[in-house]
Amino acid sequence: MNPRTGITQIAQAYPDRVEVRGRDLTGDLMGRLSFTEYFHLLLTGEEPTEEQRYYLDLLLVAIAEHGMMPTNVAARMTLAADPGSLQGAVAAGILGAGPVVLGTSEECARLLASGREPLEIAREIHDAGGKVPGFGHPVHKPQDPRAERILELADARGVSGPHVQVARQLRDAVAETWGKPLTMNVSMPIAAVMLDLGFPSSAVKAAPILARTAGLLAHLAEEKEHPLGFQLAKAAEEAVDYEP
Amino acid sequence: MNPRTGITQIAQAYPDRVEVRGRDLTGDLMGRLSFTEYFHLLLTGEEPTEEQRYYLDLLLVAIAEHGMMPTNVAARMTLAADPGSLQGAVAAGILGAGPVVLGTSEECARLLASGREPLEIAREIHDAGGKVPGFGHPVHKPQDPRAERILELADARGVSGPHVQVARQLRDAVAETWGKPLTMNVSMPIAAVMLDLGFPSSAVKAAPILARTAGLLAHLAEEKEHPLGFQLAKAAEEAVDYEP
Amino acid sequence: MNPRTGITQIAQAYPDRVEVRGRDLTGDLMGRLSFTEYFHLLLTGEEPTEEQRYYLDLLLVAIAEHGMMPTNVAARMTLAADPGSLQGAVAAGILGAGPVVLGTSEECARLLASGREPLEIAREIHDAGGKVPGFGHPVHKPQDPRAERILELADARGVSGPHVQVARQLRDAVAETWGKPLTMNVSMPIAAVMLDLGFPSSAVKAAPILARTAGLLAHLAEEKEHPLGFQLAKAAEEAVDYEP
Amino acid sequence: MNPRTGITQIAQAYPDRVEVRGRDLTGDLMGRLSFTEYFHLLLTGEEPTEEQRYYLDLLLVAIAEHGMMPTNVAARMTLAADPGSLQGAVAAGILGAGPVVLGTSEECARLLASGREPLEIAREIHDAGGKVPGFGHPVHKPQDPRAERILELADARGVSGPHVQVARQLRDAVAETWGKPLTMNVSMPIAAVMLDLGFPSSAVKAAPILARTAGLLAHLAEEKEHPLGFQLAKAAEEAVDYEP
Repeated sequence: MNPRTGITQIAQAYPDRVEVRGRDLTGDLMGRLSFTEYFHLLLTGEEPTEEQRYYLDLLLVAIAEHGMMPTNVAARMTLAADPGSLQGAVAAGILGAGPVVLGTSEECARLLASGREPLEIAREIHDAGGKVPGFGHPVHKPQDPRAERILELADARGVSGPHVQVARQLRDAVAETWGKPLTMNVSMPIAAVMLDLGFPSSAVKAAPILARTAGLLAHLAEEKEHPLGFQLAKAAEEAVDYEP
Repeated sequence: MNPRTGITQIAQAYPDRVEVRGRDLTGDLMGRLSFTEYFHLLLTGEEPTEEQRYYLDLLLVAIAEHGMMPTNVAARMTLAADPGSLQGAVAAGILGAGPVVLGTSEECARLLASGREPLEIAREIHDAGGKVPGFGHPVHKPQDPRAERILELADARGVSGPHVQVARQLRDAVAETWGKPLTMNVSMPIAAVMLDLGFPSSAVKAAPILARTAGLLAHLAEEKEHPLGFQLAKAAEEAVDYEP
Repeated sequence: MNPRTGITQIAQAYPDRVEVRGRDLTGDLMGRLSFTEYFHLLLTGEEPTEEQRYYLDLLLVAIAEHGMMPTNVAARMTLAADPGSLQGAVAAGILGAGPVVLGTSEECARLLASGREPLEIAREIHDAGGKVPGFGHPVHKPQDPRAERILELADARGVSGPHVQVARQLRDAVAETWGKPLTMNVSMPIAAVMLDLGFPSSAVKAAPILARTAGLLAHLAEEKEHPLGFQLAKAAEEAVDYEP
Repeated sequence: MNPRTGITQIAQAYPDRVEVRGRDLTGDLMGRLSFTEYFHLLLTGEEPTEEQRYYLDLLLVAIAEHGMMPTNVAARMTLAADPGSLQGAVAAGILGAGPVVLGTSEECARLLASGREPLEIAREIHDAGGKVPGFGHPVHKPQDPRAERILELADARGVSGPHVQVARQLRDAVAETWGKPLTMNVSMPIAAVMLDLGFPSSAVKAAPILARTAGLLAHLAEEKEHPLGFQLAKAAEEAVDYEP
């Protein structure tokens, strides 16, 4: 083999057809798969089961949009400054989809898959002065309604398995360790349900970014019609004093 | 009204609920809407009709992935250099979703909605030495199979309307003016079908970016498992000579 | 020639040396050139004259930093959300360095080099309801002190030439046409002086981006020590009401 | 104090002046400071000493440009796809300035400042199967000429202090532990000299990003004149086979 040659398993375009994950894009996939099913196929090489499809839709809907969040603010300010570059504004927004705001699902998944005792986890993090991934929310108190709804639907459809169980034990362990209940936010049940449904860990990280892109595009379409970007920037600027 | 106050119509988070486009996210939308339907609601404020839903899924699937394209190459090289930042690599890829590669749907829509004679449009662009948006493709010859499939399904389901008709007239006009048929690429039927289905122009621009994000996330999940980024960069570097 | 082979004139690394623009990086350039001189060499292939060096430093200093601007706000919010990715936060900030905020120097240069009558330009833009590039500023009234200082130093050092002259005529023409003086902002003298000093147009566009990157890095170093990002985002969010 | 109020020490624009780090931008800084000196002032609040200025220039020159690197390739491909957005292409390039390619100066600084025995550090990393930050280079063998030149100039000018000494001890320790000399790359002496000159750690991380931005802008100016982006992408694409 040529040492310069690498392999991709995703897709190839030919003059008269496009092949994706071993399937014919135009003859087979287009018109048959929903975008959510196609996203699963792209990411994992497999079409989802009906339960996987249902929950992937559910989770993407749960986290796509949450109001005038920092990522949406940054994206709108960027579009205001460069109205011709929708992709630049989307990129600026996605760059804010970092661990603090969006990336805890992955950490939650690691915790849930660790096989460790929930109470032991909670105590160790508490004693180190840390925060347990998936707990606490600046707006939602005492409960994150999205988290509760995901668990409710997972129970009702019979997909709650061992990872959902550990998530609930972790909630109790956190309450006991901190001496009061903390809000279990949406990241924890997302991770738990995805693991119980057999999603790979790459999907746990990728899904929030795709979801958030949809929300960003909505804000940027609105920004195009009704600009708020400079007003947002002005309010931010005025919240800070200069003191050399 | 307070001059500092702006209005958004998209969403608001409250302690015990999230409202999106006037609907209750957890009680109404989660578990009922597919991600595609939700994207439509976010973007336009309305849930899609069944035909709109079908074609939005179709179009998102048509353009999400097309092999090792420049955007995917750039994103994979970026992840190789900064493996911890999936969002940085996605952003780098989206920044390449510019007019040359991805943005022509919007220009196609403008052309189709202009009310001008196709032959007149083609001649004017030809005489100015320009390229007609939506025509020509580096790989697909003589036809772009995705474009043909979209038109076929639009005809079969009875949604082809005046804009699809103009797109076809434009294809004939281009062939006559250039003296040979040119490939009508996927951007033109996307624009035509979206206009015939009543999508706003913001959706014509936003849909390709959401679609391409799904493809990027698939390439980045593969890159994480089987790194190619530096190999791609090396091949690119070796294609160029330094001559001061 | 191999059709696959392209040419770059900028640089090449060899096992034992690095060549940049035909010069030996370590043996010749390092320790001899200032970063500003090197930037000029990189960009144009030539080392700057002393006057070019002086004004490139002057202009970079003039526009690197201007307080809590939208680009700095977006960058700080992005670092708050993803504290590990300094490069992601810089990128988010640079994406806002678009034509509305930063890019008018290039348009000013085009205007100054057009050879057209200042009064004719002003009237045409006025009658079309437009804005003349390089005029107007949200904070600086009646004068932009940076613009005045650049002109003053250009006169004092004898580098003001025909483009600076046209810039001043344009200021008079704008005042006459609009019936009142408008602030000539910093973009116009930057363009005028750079043209009078023989800078290529690529430098007119590149210099503001390099300058602004320095300002972004300062804000992000401060953000790391004294986080403000979420506070900025909160103030922005509270300036907007949700009305579905 | 208003809980909403934060403090920035960097800059503030007023109608008739701009204040930066407590100094008058137009009356004091413009025309007096070089861009390098201003960058130091922005970042640290202090003007640099002459030695700090000399080495900051030296280090920025050393790492600004290194040929057709992955970051430059990604940026050029992005500009090819979106020729109107110079800032988008710069941002795409900067996103690749991650730890693998560019960020090791910061890790080197941590190592040098740790106070630990070089031999102990080397053995611990070796036994864990890791790589020592600042050692190894894909092109430069057996020495990185930029690293050697920085050390040479630091010795000649008498600024080499304890951190440069530890860097050299680390080089010996690495050679002993690995059983052969490894290339000390440019990141290590950059970190060592900056620490010996009293730069804060924020500068160690920020300087490479500013430097690299200059190189990116040069490549993008060349790309604008002589496009290579799609050719680079094609060469990369052809280095990979699709195997579903």
